[in-house]
Amino acid sequence: MEDPFRTIEWKGDHIRLLDQTLLPSREEYIAIRTVDEMCDAIYRLAVRGAPAIGVAACMGVALGMLTAPEDNREEFDTRFKAICAQISATRPTAVNLFWAVERMEKLFQAASGMAPAQIKELLVAEAIAAEREDRTICENIGLMGRDLIDDGDTILTHCNAGGLATAGYGTALGVIRAAFEQGKKIKVFSDETRPLNQGSRITCWELQKLAIPVTLITDSTAGSLMQRGLIQKVIVGADRIAFNGDAANKIGTYSVAVLAHYHKIPFYVAAPLSTIDKKIDSGTQIRIEERDPCEVTHIGGICVAPSDVRALNYAFDVTPHELIAGIITECGVARDPFVKDFESFFSR
Amino acid sequence: MEDPFRTIEWKGDHIRLLDQTLLPSREEYIAIRTVDEMCDAIYRLAVRGAPAIGVAACMGVALGMLTAPEDNREEFDTRFKAICAQISATRPTAVNLFWAVERMEKLFQAASGMAPAQIKELLVAEAIAAEREDRTICENIGLMGRDLIDDGDTILTHCNAGGLATAGYGTALGVIRAAFEQGKKIKVFSDETRPLNQGSRITCWELQKLAIPVTLITDSTAGSLMQRGLIQKVIVGADRIAFNGDAANKIGTYSVAVLAHYHKIPFYVAAPLSTIDKKIDSGTQIRIEERDPCEVTHIGGICVAPSDVRALNYAFDVTPHELIAGIITECGVARDPFVKDFESFFSR
Repeated sequence: MEDPFRTIEWKGDHIRLLDQTLLPSREEYIAIRTVDEMCDAIYRLAVRGAPAIGVAACMGVALGMLTAPEDNREEFDTRFKAICAQISATRPTAVNLFWAVERMEKLFQAASGMAPAQIKELLVAEAIAAEREDRTICENIGLMGRDLIDDGDTILTHCNAGGLATAGYGTALGVIRAAFEQGKKIKVFSDETRPLNQGSRITCWELQKLAIPVTLITDSTAGSLMQRGLIQKVIVGADRIAFNGDAANKIGTYSVAVLAHYHKIPFYVAAPLSTIDKKIDSGTQIRIEERDPCEVTHIGGICVAPSDVRALNYAFDVTPHELIAGIITECGVARDPFVKDFESFFSR
Repeated sequence: MEDPFRTIEWKGDHIRLLDQTLLPSREEYIAIRTVDEMCDAIYRLAVRGAPAIGVAACMGVALGMLTAPEDNREEFDTRFKAICAQISATRPTAVNLFWAVERMEKLFQAASGMAPAQIKELLVAEAIAAEREDRTICENIGLMGRDLIDDGDTILTHCNAGGLATAGYGTALGVIRAAFEQGKKIKVFSDETRPLNQGSRITCWELQKLAIPVTLITDSTAGSLMQRGLIQKVIVGADRIAFNGDAANKIGTYSVAVLAHYHKIPFYVAAPLSTIDKKIDSGTQIRIEERDPCEVTHIGGICVAPSDVRALNYAFDVTPHELIAGIITECGVARDPFVKDFESFFSR
């Protein structure tokens, strides 16, 4: 089945994004024409999900360099550095952002002998390639993970690790989609995922477009459904994975993992290798983004708490590797001890 | 410290209620003049919390009988039965509702030899007594529970088991308040408690009025805070407790209990003996209210999901007794095996 939407697309002189903050009530594409606009889109979650942010970062760098002066090499280089720094500073947790910027930096260095006009073309080609690769990687994640799903399973997912969190197809939802495309009868429970409701707004919308049966629940209902025996598998995405398998993902993922562990339900993480941070060997080293408390006190612009109440808004939490039954990557399913499988995947 | 509000009050020819659906943005009292209005107030949660619903039911019966014909005994009796049936049908889970109706029925039977006018007076006196008793019971729950709280503790609570869930003072928040009034330095994390946000709307509001430090979090943040070692105790209320100690409470309570168990944090339930259902010996027999899915798909009137998505909205879940460190009642703290302590409390 064809993708029912396009998350992000290179359009020659601008980038076209589906503004995810407006879903599901409005399906609106926006045109990003400057690095500032791209940084704003990443920060306010118009584009979100670790792999999609990676692609957005690559495209943002290429876009920003389009207008760099070709007649002043020093300024050209300075501009590149400034763009990379600005994009890197948008969000701290998803490693794909830094991976993407590094990818562009490596290309920039390798092409240092070329003329600025040529470098610009290479950067654009690299950004477009990053988008295509991401799509292929997600399809491979689906192929690697689909056999973990049994016919008749009801699967819980948290937040959105679907086509909209990637350049298309999705990671956690990619596995679900691949199993569904095999003809397996599966159902999904989608946690609404407060505070920004990516589950109710985006995951439900995506699964409906794919005709995969989905039921929306509040985040605190998942435990009760596990207790009733209504959930057979949990699959979520990840924003950064340490080399020991500890996985940072949307706040609430850790709670789901503990609940799955208590109910002896397999808990899987689906993510591309680009989400694995080789530089850190444990989740304690992952910096967790703390966002505006207003996201907790307000819903859709309406204040649902005393206006002066203190609120805490961690955007992510870290699930320790011992609670993870498997990490589904494009190279296969890694199992504890993850470091062994990761080393093998990266050495291919 | 005096109560900063009055949950429910008998006013001679009507009942005065603080409309909890409007909190915290509006502090508005409404006048209930008919049984229909009282049933509507209970169903739409203008008055909520098991003990408060019990008092509301007593007052609702007395109010409805005020206009019963005194010159036709048969009609007088029929009216009484109809009112009791109508009030009993509003919400299925909180046992205090049925306990309250039974209390009024017993009085009605005992007074069967009296004149209708006298019976009316007795019913009113009983309803007022129920409100006063509830206040005293909550203060005693506070006294019985406060020593479980250590100086410096940070306590997690879910939903609202405060003064507004009772005729005043509160159950879970009553224990917290009693410990605070002892001079203990304590802090509270309040789960927002989707879908109707009693935590953000009511618990935060109450604790602020009492000057007890409170921080609001989304429901799915609690696990991460436990993982970080930031929570020392959990205290919640209950809507019905089976005789083995299994406790029904707001959806999400079970998840919190499992998380507390995993992190070796004591999980307490605070409730009056009227919440213990002697007729059932396990939580599997508790009927769980399923409410309108719109409460999940909408927030403050705004749709946050595809308009046609299926959603599941269980209002309560059941925490099994083995996850409960103690049930704090007005007669003392019951421990597992709860049936032994409950028998002793009820035989006093």
